[in-house]
Amino acid sequence: MDFSAVKALTFDVFGTVVDWRTSIAREVDAFARSHGLGLDGHAFADAWRSLYQPSMEEVRSGARPWTRLDDLHRESLLTLLDRFGVTGIPEEEIDRLNRAWHRLDPWPDVVEGLTRLKSKFVIATLSNGNVALMVNMAKRAGLPWDAILGAEVARAYKPQPRAYEAAAELLGLAPAQCMMVAAHNADLHAAAKSGLRTAFVARPTEHGPGQTRDLAVEPGIELAADSFTDLADKLGC
Amino acid sequence: MDFSAVKALTFDVFGTVVDWRTSIAREVDAFARSHGLGLDGHAFADAWRSLYQPSMEEVRSGARPWTRLDDLHRESLLTLLDRFGVTGIPEEEIDRLNRAWHRLDPWPDVVEGLTRLKSKFVIATLSNGNVALMVNMAKRAGLPWDAILGAEVARAYKPQPRAYEAAAELLGLAPAQCMMVAAHNADLHAAAKSGLRTAFVARPTEHGPGQTRDLAVEPGIELAADSFTDLADKLGC
Repeated sequence: MDFSAVKALTFDVFGTVVDWRTSIAREVDAFARSHGLGLDGHAFADAWRSLYQPSMEEVRSGARPWTRLDDLHRESLLTLLDRFGVTGIPEEEIDRLNRAWHRLDPWPDVVEGLTRLKSKFVIATLSNGNVALMVNMAKRAGLPWDAILGAEVARAYKPQPRAYEAAAELLGLAPAQCMMVAAHNADLHAAAKSGLRTAFVARPTEHGPGQTRDLAVEPGIELAADSFTDLADKLGC
Repeated sequence: MDFSAVKALTFDVFGTVVDWRTSIAREVDAFARSHGLGLDGHAFADAWRSLYQPSMEEVRSGARPWTRLDDLHRESLLTLLDRFGVTGIPEEEIDRLNRAWHRLDPWPDVVEGLTRLKSKFVIATLSNGNVALMVNMAKRAGLPWDAILGAEVARAYKPQPRAYEAAAELLGLAPAQCMMVAAHNADLHAAAKSGLRTAFVARPTEHGPGQTRDLAVEPGIELAADSFTDLADKLGC
């Protein structure tokens, strides 16, 4: 496969770059301790994430106007606190817990891998996370992005084509000069429909030890790697 | 003056971060040599820049739809090549010369200053330059931006209020948590009208040795510095 035309790598972030589940569980456990609550951090993280696609679907479908992910996350958090029987939390502490999504830790290979990939390619986020979330995450984790793109600047949530196409346009590139990097086959198939090149990076514990989906690359994806450093090797960085 | 509420610095780029005049003159001189033309690089650079505000004004006024700066620059370039009597240049060489704006050199204090400022603040572009231009410039010059914001993501050219307000919104901050940094008083006055804090950095040779405007900070601007390193000193970085 010839990747010489690729000028930019655009990255999915939740799951691909950062281990959201472990990080959110840690934050929820700390929150629970400080309030004397009996929450299970991993169960809460999974429940929070399970509301992610439905919340974006309301925007994709046109049922509600553009709403950034921080606000969708906060609505989901209120739903979950109610479901888990948690009451009486001050607004500023809810805000702080909601911003746990700004404090996610990268997988161990990410900073080295991105640094190597950046030497040859433009590296940009193409996440459904909003700009502030991505900027704050990057500053805390040392992620050396060239640009923060994605849903908020496109005003469209993946897998809508506009999300991918806007990223290429903003980079001044044809879609075929951009390669989408993700741990999720569905994201890559959608990117390919918009003309982007595709690379799968396996994250077999994103959803915990019993993960059943996205354990392997699917047919039609052009490149597969075990880590960002492996991706750097395979792309000659 | 208390700047403790400031979380992000948003930067004008042409003139403030990069010495566009010297860089464009150098590129035009090289172009002229390679084609055996008698162009004066500095005169051509000044002429190109003189078409900058009129070209954006067509977009601001609504006379034409959103058009990114790369395209406005190219239209201006065609106008100037015609005016200077230059004909028969292949399209790809015109494109290459137009992308001279992606290859501008920073002032000598910029990389050190930005690196220090980044340790305490989110640092983002708030330029009328489009995203690709800013990304390519940053990669070449080593500018360590946290985010590339500005006119293209706001779909509004400075000094329209929307340009400033969109940057703050995308960073998840109130305007008063953002400080605009520019070598141009008018840019800072406009940012202040949208509620941003303001810092002037003097660039007394942006327009060459005979510069007459923006030689000093004007009343109403909150902070003045001689360089980005001086700004870092004054902001405690």
